[in-house]
Amino acid sequence: MILADQANELDNADPLATYRDRFLLPDGVIYLDGNSLGALPKDTPAAMQRAIEQEWGDGLIRSWNDAGWFELGSRVGSKIAPMIGAQLHEVIACDTVSANLFKLIGAALAMRPGRKVVLSEPGNFPTDIYMIEGLEKQGLAERRLAQREDMISALDEDVALLMLTHSHYKSGELFDMAALTKAAHDVGALVLWDLSHSTGALPVDLNGVEADFATGCGYKYLCGGPGAPAFVFVAERHLSGLQQPLTGWFGHSRPFAFLDDYDAAPGIERLQCGTSPVLGLTALEIGVDLIAEIGVDRLYQKSQALSEFFLTCLDGHGVALEQVGPADSAHRGSQLSFRHQSAYAICQALIARGVIGDFRDPDILRLGFAPAYLRFADIAAAAQHLCDVLASREYERPEFNKRAAVT
Amino acid sequence: MILADQANELDNADPLATYRDRFLLPDGVIYLDGNSLGALPKDTPAAMQRAIEQEWGDGLIRSWNDAGWFELGSRVGSKIAPMIGAQLHEVIACDTVSANLFKLIGAALAMRPGRKVVLSEPGNFPTDIYMIEGLEKQGLAERRLAQREDMISALDEDVALLMLTHSHYKSGELFDMAALTKAAHDVGALVLWDLSHSTGALPVDLNGVEADFATGCGYKYLCGGPGAPAFVFVAERHLSGLQQPLTGWFGHSRPFAFLDDYDAAPGIERLQCGTSPVLGLTALEIGVDLIAEIGVDRLYQKSQALSEFFLTCLDGHGVALEQVGPADSAHRGSQLSFRHQSAYAICQALIARGVIGDFRDPDILRLGFAPAYLRFADIAAAAQHLCDVLASREYERPEFNKRAAVT
Repeated sequence: MILADQANELDNADPLATYRDRFLLPDGVIYLDGNSLGALPKDTPAAMQRAIEQEWGDGLIRSWNDAGWFELGSRVGSKIAPMIGAQLHEVIACDTVSANLFKLIGAALAMRPGRKVVLSEPGNFPTDIYMIEGLEKQGLAERRLAQREDMISALDEDVALLMLTHSHYKSGELFDMAALTKAAHDVGALVLWDLSHSTGALPVDLNGVEADFATGCGYKYLCGGPGAPAFVFVAERHLSGLQQPLTGWFGHSRPFAFLDDYDAAPGIERLQCGTSPVLGLTALEIGVDLIAEIGVDRLYQKSQALSEFFLTCLDGHGVALEQVGPADSAHRGSQLSFRHQSAYAICQALIARGVIGDFRDPDILRLGFAPAYLRFADIAAAAQHLCDVLASREYERPEFNKRAAVT
Repeated sequence: MILADQANELDNADPLATYRDRFLLPDGVIYLDGNSLGALPKDTPAAMQRAIEQEWGDGLIRSWNDAGWFELGSRVGSKIAPMIGAQLHEVIACDTVSANLFKLIGAALAMRPGRKVVLSEPGNFPTDIYMIEGLEKQGLAERRLAQREDMISALDEDVALLMLTHSHYKSGELFDMAALTKAAHDVGALVLWDLSHSTGALPVDLNGVEADFATGCGYKYLCGGPGAPAFVFVAERHLSGLQQPLTGWFGHSRPFAFLDDYDAAPGIERLQCGTSPVLGLTALEIGVDLIAEIGVDRLYQKSQALSEFFLTCLDGHGVALEQVGPADSAHRGSQLSFRHQSAYAICQALIARGVIGDFRDPDILRLGFAPAYLRFADIAAAAQHLCDVLASREYERPEFNKRAAVT
């Protein structure tokens, strides 16, 4: 059977096929970068218009109470919770992944006096490693990086916190959350999982593995919009005593008592810092609602099928590319990455053909398979384009080899 | 002349009168809470729709370059700069006031090794004081609070940072920025001004007074929307060496090189932490553009005239209320505050009549005079309502005495 027919068959049998219509996607584009910025849900523009014109414009300051703005962060958090194996009151949407990492690293150091080491891996997503640095310069933390195969042996009684990203941003390779969490606990360390490349794409069971902390991104698979607020998880057993360093007024037990002394809110609200970003949270809620409706288990199944079909297509065209990360889809997130010395130019040539993937320095072509809005037909077409770009060496054209100022 | 006629005359002579039409304000409301949440500029809904549908929906990930999302924070910052006496490259819009305070306190402590004291005043806006607490619990800072009349004598060589709010959130009382900045510098301390209640309402000259640091709010007089991003100012002389503790990837010199080691961006971009909140910044930019177009000097003049006219109206009705803060409008921000044991109920009774002011615990009725969209006729009507509420004792009704769960 030719690949296009095979794609049509898979699309016809796809139980998630109709969800593509719940997104606004540009014509002529095959979007393989939903792991960097998720597509726009069709309900978002109207929800934003309502929030802007009715809640802000008409309701004005009254909307903090009347439109539920105060609870927006916890409401969105409680909708994310079931996707990551958390209880509803253990998750809140606020700030950025970076700021949330800082809060949680700080909290972990406070819980493990005498220990300073924050253990992670080299090549983790940069901001995760960078957020240790601020605390290191303050003399509070000590960074230790270990290759993933040496991670368990790098755990010792100096380690306050093991901080890892579940699905690697570049390779998609997954950590065994249960095993690493247990190993860290065995030496008395706490564990913080960055779920940025997992949430909304892979099932995660934070409480099942007894994780202590987590954070994750709102603008990738959750489709919350560019720079959407992030979320943060704290296991219930740590909540009441948790001391996080960003002690802003929205984390206070009674912010509107305007007291001089900080008294942390009893629950997950103590993870908030400044005033909630209402517009960002409003957009995030629409994305979260849609992804929750589709369901993470079904999304994960389809994302595996999409990436496997992409490999089938490459194979069918007789193209062999060096794959980075696990060959087995059970050990990787919702993406495929390939190493090629002309990865940048190939990525640009694909973009010129309407196939948007992304490039990660220095030589990685990364293709994300956001299963909520991709068809198998898109995958077949994208594979065809990639094969054409490679066969024709079209990527050698000068216009595809000029690096943009940013990214 | 009766007050209504006087108001009409003032409105007819008001050079800013036409700007009211640039905002979307609900019918039947006199909005005296623009100092808490600024009104919605008429251009905002369309700008947001464009950002959502075209930039996010159609442009997808490409918009980080093509729509200028990477520069959005610095672009908005450079538009705020002239309002506060800063150079264009000294200001960036990012995160919240709370998070920005933390960055700047941390930076100041790093610049003054051996000193730990952060000096502020009791009753400062809570989040300002709270943000010292996180650093205090980490053993890095020591909070010292002094009454404003004792502030200069509380400055000594233990003080790393003097951190004050220019216009007090409750009373509107202004600090003499030049005198306090100089006094702090005389003992070798740095100075951080919170301009949340000043920016867009009062002229501020940060470089004129040789301020070191500042931050301020995007959702009050700048009309950036609920929970809008804040801004941060660092004087050029401190920029290149500045170490702020929230070392996220958007503050890196080359975020897309994905390096393991943090290397701060050379300029104000090092004050960024996580990914820029694009939707929030988009809304903020519209508000900033509009306020910049009207001009802070004209806004300040009108806000003084509005508050003075409000006092004239109360006087004309023979109502005497205990005013909190300076009688002379030259010494206060764009607001009036009154102490009354039934302030909460009076505020609720006014809201029921469509006059939205706010209440600040325990006994303050706070009325803001956002000059961009208020008419003198609104002021006369609001004063009339307040006098009626007081004379009729309508505020004693039970429905006005039930405290909402929040605010």
